[in-house]
Amino acid sequence: MTHSAVDVIAAKRDRHRLTDAQIDWVVAAYTRGEVADEQMAALAMAILLNGMDDAETARWTLAMIESGERLALPDVGRPLVDKHSTGGVGDKLTLPLAPLVAACGAAVPQLSGRGLGHTGGTLDKLEAIPGWRAELSADEIAAQLAEVGAVVCATTPSLAPADRKLYALRDVTGTVASIPLIASSIMSKKIAEGTGGLVLDVKVGSGAFLRTHDAAEELARRMVAIGAAHGLSTRALLTDMSVPLGRTVGNALEVAEAVEVLRGSGPPDVVELTLALARAMLGLAGIEADPAEVLASGRAFEVWERMIAAQGGDPAAPLPAATHVEIVEAPASGILTRLDALAVGTAAWRLGAGRARKEHPVQAAAGVRLLAGVGDEVRAGDPLLELHTDTPGAVPGARAALDAGLAIADEPVGRGPLLLGEVGA
Amino acid sequence: MTHSAVDVIAAKRDRHRLTDAQIDWVVAAYTRGEVADEQMAALAMAILLNGMDDAETARWTLAMIESGERLALPDVGRPLVDKHSTGGVGDKLTLPLAPLVAACGAAVPQLSGRGLGHTGGTLDKLEAIPGWRAELSADEIAAQLAEVGAVVCATTPSLAPADRKLYALRDVTGTVASIPLIASSIMSKKIAEGTGGLVLDVKVGSGAFLRTHDAAEELARRMVAIGAAHGLSTRALLTDMSVPLGRTVGNALEVAEAVEVLRGSGPPDVVELTLALARAMLGLAGIEADPAEVLASGRAFEVWERMIAAQGGDPAAPLPAATHVEIVEAPASGILTRLDALAVGTAAWRLGAGRARKEHPVQAAAGVRLLAGVGDEVRAGDPLLELHTDTPGAVPGARAALDAGLAIADEPVGRGPLLLGEVGA
Repeated sequence: MTHSAVDVIAAKRDRHRLTDAQIDWVVAAYTRGEVADEQMAALAMAILLNGMDDAETARWTLAMIESGERLALPDVGRPLVDKHSTGGVGDKLTLPLAPLVAACGAAVPQLSGRGLGHTGGTLDKLEAIPGWRAELSADEIAAQLAEVGAVVCATTPSLAPADRKLYALRDVTGTVASIPLIASSIMSKKIAEGTGGLVLDVKVGSGAFLRTHDAAEELARRMVAIGAAHGLSTRALLTDMSVPLGRTVGNALEVAEAVEVLRGSGPPDVVELTLALARAMLGLAGIEADPAEVLASGRAFEVWERMIAAQGGDPAAPLPAATHVEIVEAPASGILTRLDALAVGTAAWRLGAGRARKEHPVQAAAGVRLLAGVGDEVRAGDPLLELHTDTPGAVPGARAALDAGLAIADEPVGRGPLLLGEVGA
Repeated sequence: MTHSAVDVIAAKRDRHRLTDAQIDWVVAAYTRGEVADEQMAALAMAILLNGMDDAETARWTLAMIESGERLALPDVGRPLVDKHSTGGVGDKLTLPLAPLVAACGAAVPQLSGRGLGHTGGTLDKLEAIPGWRAELSADEIAAQLAEVGAVVCATTPSLAPADRKLYALRDVTGTVASIPLIASSIMSKKIAEGTGGLVLDVKVGSGAFLRTHDAAEELARRMVAIGAAHGLSTRALLTDMSVPLGRTVGNALEVAEAVEVLRGSGPPDVVELTLALARAMLGLAGIEADPAEVLASGRAFEVWERMIAAQGGDPAAPLPAATHVEIVEAPASGILTRLDALAVGTAAWRLGAGRARKEHPVQAAAGVRLLAGVGDEVRAGDPLLELHTDTPGAVPGARAALDAGLAIADEPVGRGPLLLGEVGA
């Protein structure tokens, strides 16, 4: 059967369902370059505005998987389970989580990306560790999974190439914010990776790309449905991203905080969410273990050291420190009632922790350390935040980003709940 | 003020009005190549699905005019008035109309295009006349307007280049069918051309690109509003395009029919619409003349001969004839109740009268001659249509296109009214 790009675009423009054959053809032809960027851009906008139902979205996901190879992971003798976060400010959870879940008896194949904009990328954080490398071959991934039980590395170019091409197009055409396209993008890579179970951390709030509970729940529901359609056990937690996670935002700063958690201390919110995600992953893997106990035992930290060393990193080496640290002081006395995740994330990004374009480098040492949390009492002139950077010229921009993100008032407030909901098995 | 393409796309995606500054920037930047095709395609789809109001559409039209030059027509001593048709099957009305209105005392600067798909282009028809050339310089246009009073020629590349680029993009991205984009495309060229009055022939029915009265009326209303916003007196007639206009479809065949009309005979529907459009044009030009009388006097035919000769054509030369003519016979006896414009237009197109891609040539002699009209009694075996072509291999495809477009039944029917409504001054 022959298809034309205009017919497929017109079908979705006119609010019809796309057929399986239309979806298979348009994704494959786009990957091959036979459907032009401008045609896929028009289709993406039509999908964004007119939607795709669960069956269309599952098929779109399949077509993106079929555009490349599946990662053939060998049997490593323990269940495979992975986690994906939709991205947040200070979200270093993968770092303690992957070794913790491996220490509990599962195998964690965590293929990750780099950050763009105000949310950091897991690979950027780990690259702050001297010697650590993100790029592994399929054989190296398999070997490390068998030997260490956890691997965090760059996704391989052969997995879902249609998604990579489509994501770059959506980024410049205002078509990122489509729930079916986001869901299929995430799930195509995870299904192609070959994990046996998947826990999704869907962030909600100012520092996440989904600001409302309803939108986050819809994305979670869509991804769980795609998982079900492809036989992948998937469970989603909705978690708060209105304030940054933990006390650090920035690559080396976050690695140091993750190590604190693995050593049995660290900020309570990071510990709480790490354990909640670990329990969900272990539940999908069918493993009965208490992650809190394993964390306290030091076994997760041992896996961390082996995981970092296996990829050339020195887990004992000092992390890079910024050449320039400035203090932001509390402008008044009272209770810190607002510490906005987007404001802090933007400040860290401007200090050099993140990138504006995907070809830009990041500064390993740049970022923000929070010296007080929401609900804490502060006095005027107290240090509230540290700004870390190797480029002091960025400080005024970072201070400007923080301006509307901080508030001190008289009424006491607490941090709201971290876990906002669950979808799936 | 700086803009980003993604911000403009996102504004329309999120159902906001585009500001004047956004419209000016995005159209100019697209013309310069700074906004990429994929970005404009996403914006066009967002406009198609979320709309633009009258003020946005008027500004979009202005931005397209400003992307190029305005044709500086000199004062030719008589009022300038033009006509535009949204395109139909057998629509040769420009050919008798332009010389007729000129013979009545107005000046008609008719800048036209070539056809694509099943509706023919005025330039394709006139190019069937030996020697006639469509491309004129601005000076030649002005001189012919002053001397002859009518010119039908190709639009110049300097008029609304943004429209030409955008139209080509819309054609391959399923974004043609946007009323505001259609309206601004048509009006930008007519306003840039510098006519003093404009009559729009908005076709409705199977052979037009607008199938419903409501859509055609909306397009007419939009174009009249754009004209008003730019000080151009504009009036729209809604006319029937459910059956072909006249008895011929195809380039040379239609020229011959137009000449019949100019000589005082010709099919009644072509004569009726020619006179209705002429009256509307003369009304806008403030000329009191009876076009029926002028047509009968032979003065319109004299202008035709001078108009053709001024562009190198020989009005007395024989028109090209097809090497191959086949008859389609009536399959049964009864009343011809259906003679579908789209079916006949598609048949003529397949015979070689039209083109599928804009770089393709057309056959001057190919097309369809109708030997009976809706409401005529026919007997089984009577000749119903003639198929003309230089490529006999195309005949089976043309016959197939006609299959569902013809019906013969017992109940008597008449052709419905030609004039379906009016919008504007």
